[in-house]
Amino acid sequence: MIKVMYNNEDILALASFYKDQLVNDTVPFWFPRSLDHEFGGYLLMRDEKGDLIDTDKAVWIQGRACWLLATLYNTVEQNPDWLEGAKLGYEFLKDKCFNKAGKMYFHVDRQGNPIRMRRYFFSETFAVIACAAYAKASGDQQAAKLARDLFGICLEYAHGERQMEPKFEQTRPSKGIGIPMIMINTAQQLRETIGDPRCDVAITAWIQEIEDNFVKDDIRCVMEQVDLDGRIIDHIDGRTLNPGHAIEGAWFIMHEGIYRGMDQKLLDLGLRMLDYMWERGWDKEDGGILYFKDVYNKPVQEYWQDMKFWWPQNEAIIATLLAFLITNDEKYAQMHKQIHDYAYLHFHDQENGEWFGYLHKDGSIAQTAKGNMFKGPFHLPRQEWYCWSIIEQFQKAR
Amino acid sequence: MIKVMYNNEDILALASFYKDQLVNDTVPFWFPRSLDHEFGGYLLMRDEKGDLIDTDKAVWIQGRACWLLATLYNTVEQNPDWLEGAKLGYEFLKDKCFNKAGKMYFHVDRQGNPIRMRRYFFSETFAVIACAAYAKASGDQQAAKLARDLFGICLEYAHGERQMEPKFEQTRPSKGIGIPMIMINTAQQLRETIGDPRCDVAITAWIQEIEDNFVKDDIRCVMEQVDLDGRIIDHIDGRTLNPGHAIEGAWFIMHEGIYRGMDQKLLDLGLRMLDYMWERGWDKEDGGILYFKDVYNKPVQEYWQDMKFWWPQNEAIIATLLAFLITNDEKYAQMHKQIHDYAYLHFHDQENGEWFGYLHKDGSIAQTAKGNMFKGPFHLPRQEWYCWSIIEQFQKAR
Repeated sequence: MIKVMYNNEDILALASFYKDQLVNDTVPFWFPRSLDHEFGGYLLMRDEKGDLIDTDKAVWIQGRACWLLATLYNTVEQNPDWLEGAKLGYEFLKDKCFNKAGKMYFHVDRQGNPIRMRRYFFSETFAVIACAAYAKASGDQQAAKLARDLFGICLEYAHGERQMEPKFEQTRPSKGIGIPMIMINTAQQLRETIGDPRCDVAITAWIQEIEDNFVKDDIRCVMEQVDLDGRIIDHIDGRTLNPGHAIEGAWFIMHEGIYRGMDQKLLDLGLRMLDYMWERGWDKEDGGILYFKDVYNKPVQEYWQDMKFWWPQNEAIIATLLAFLITNDEKYAQMHKQIHDYAYLHFHDQENGEWFGYLHKDGSIAQTAKGNMFKGPFHLPRQEWYCWSIIEQFQKAR
Repeated sequence: MIKVMYNNEDILALASFYKDQLVNDTVPFWFPRSLDHEFGGYLLMRDEKGDLIDTDKAVWIQGRACWLLATLYNTVEQNPDWLEGAKLGYEFLKDKCFNKAGKMYFHVDRQGNPIRMRRYFFSETFAVIACAAYAKASGDQQAAKLARDLFGICLEYAHGERQMEPKFEQTRPSKGIGIPMIMINTAQQLRETIGDPRCDVAITAWIQEIEDNFVKDDIRCVMEQVDLDGRIIDHIDGRTLNPGHAIEGAWFIMHEGIYRGMDQKLLDLGLRMLDYMWERGWDKEDGGILYFKDVYNKPVQEYWQDMKFWWPQNEAIIATLLAFLITNDEKYAQMHKQIHDYAYLHFHDQENGEWFGYLHKDGSIAQTAKGNMFKGPFHLPRQEWYCWSIIEQFQKAR
């Protein structure tokens, strides 16, 4: 393998590349055509060319798209179209995506009539970051209040003070890394837009929860699920690892280490998590991050476990870049180059812009939708935005 | 393409092949090692070699395995080991798989402690066929009563007299082919083991429901979901077709046509359903039946839609064989040979017996489990058993 090392010129070229992709390829795929001026929100379910395949609205993605537009306005350029676009999403979320009890739907139709409620509260976490970013962009105090109120509700769910309908019986209680991980990022976004005094304490506790219960140094692994005491549950579900998810958590924690003035303990934790899950998730045969692995290499339930989804690649591009910026270790330059080259070669649609979402293990395209119930303008533009902006931040600190 | 035509000798050779595979390859993979003499029921979650990967028990598969053992006893040979094995499953279902309200769990642990309840009633439908087949094998009147009582509960669910927890809000009501289809087979099995006067009327009504609402002759298609009036719902979920499911329904209806003295209207309906969904589901590039297709060839939500699962191949092997036996049309001999050859070449594990469950589109193995939450001793042994026994039946009728 050829040794890779990034000098400062290479890093600046990466920043330019990501910003250029973001502004000239990814964002124009979605906007302005996805703005629904008639009913509010966004029309995001699109095929490879960008033609609409469904007018329904996935509430997660409505929130994420609103966050993106507001964040672009806050950090890239004060483009009034982006602010207007963010407002469309904010108002649709606020007016159309809650049931009477104040819980957010998962899926609504174009007009905002409810299609599906789900048990968990991820619609709320994405609404927090949308409302917070929009509040910063617009100065709208009602949006700021909604962000903080929803964050309070998320905290209640996360702490068990507000009950989710249980999916499982009480025989074998378990907990997942998803909630602490998403909550770290939700709190970081809230803090870094409009601020909230609850964030720092909460982030510290969730990172501790991940380190104590999910990170297994003895077997070099980050678990996706554990029992209530943090032990591995030796059944199919309990053994199933999600490397992309763990690597996403790794960079949230590295981000926190940077935010806290290069807190070495946090940086080390994030780097370890990346190392462990790269070892387990990187496909040495075909490249890319695999979707699921079994902790003991037994078969997992999910038959599509060896597919390559877009978002684990996005998370790994961020995590490896951050790891390099933090350590200057050529190991991470190598990893970053591997995942960057793999992803932009196989996922990026040169012809129509944006990325395909779903590849077979061998890198061929399995499914051509650019937007559906789970994919929209989020992981890819967030990666391009974050990589560009974190390089800028490191450059300024030189 | 080489023309294929089966003469009587070929058909007899197929019957021998299926019976031999059933008795000497498929069944011995599972039994006796899966019988749980300690806690009852079966230990069915196994890797390619047959080693246990989980001691949990999926209630669907417990019922299906019990049905298989009792059916082998009833139809292949009165082997007391099969009867004893069926009893283990029957008693586990009866004693361990119901909650206090009388609803069956989806997933329990080895001892029968509940892990997961699901909203629908497919655990019940598989328990009906298990109890009915066991009642016939053993003469146990309590098992016969349980089969009939559970069938009554299934009828109440199917007719909406007993409510399932709704998955969706009321904005866009829909219905699936799954319930009428599974209920046809449940009633057929009940009728053809211990008999029940409710079956014939119910089967007639469900077939009518499928013909009137799900079969679209104008576009040569069997829908998986429609609105309450049988119209296509032009959203991602509503457009998603499941060819294996529709082909399974096709042979249940052909079976009914044969049972009713070669009822031409039913036979024609089953043949049309097979024709339509073979056209849409057969992978002309790589062979095998694809998992999902969009009715208008748009992208479907499920990213693994082009994988080849074991069970659609099993259903297509049965349906094409039945279609040939009914029509003597070389078109169906050709189709049967294509799917038979594809499936036994790619899915069958020559070394360890049984079939792999999950192949990539190109026919390579994606996941090696022989048994998990959804795969166990059912579709493959049912196919081998049914194909063998239906040929015997047609031979006797000559």
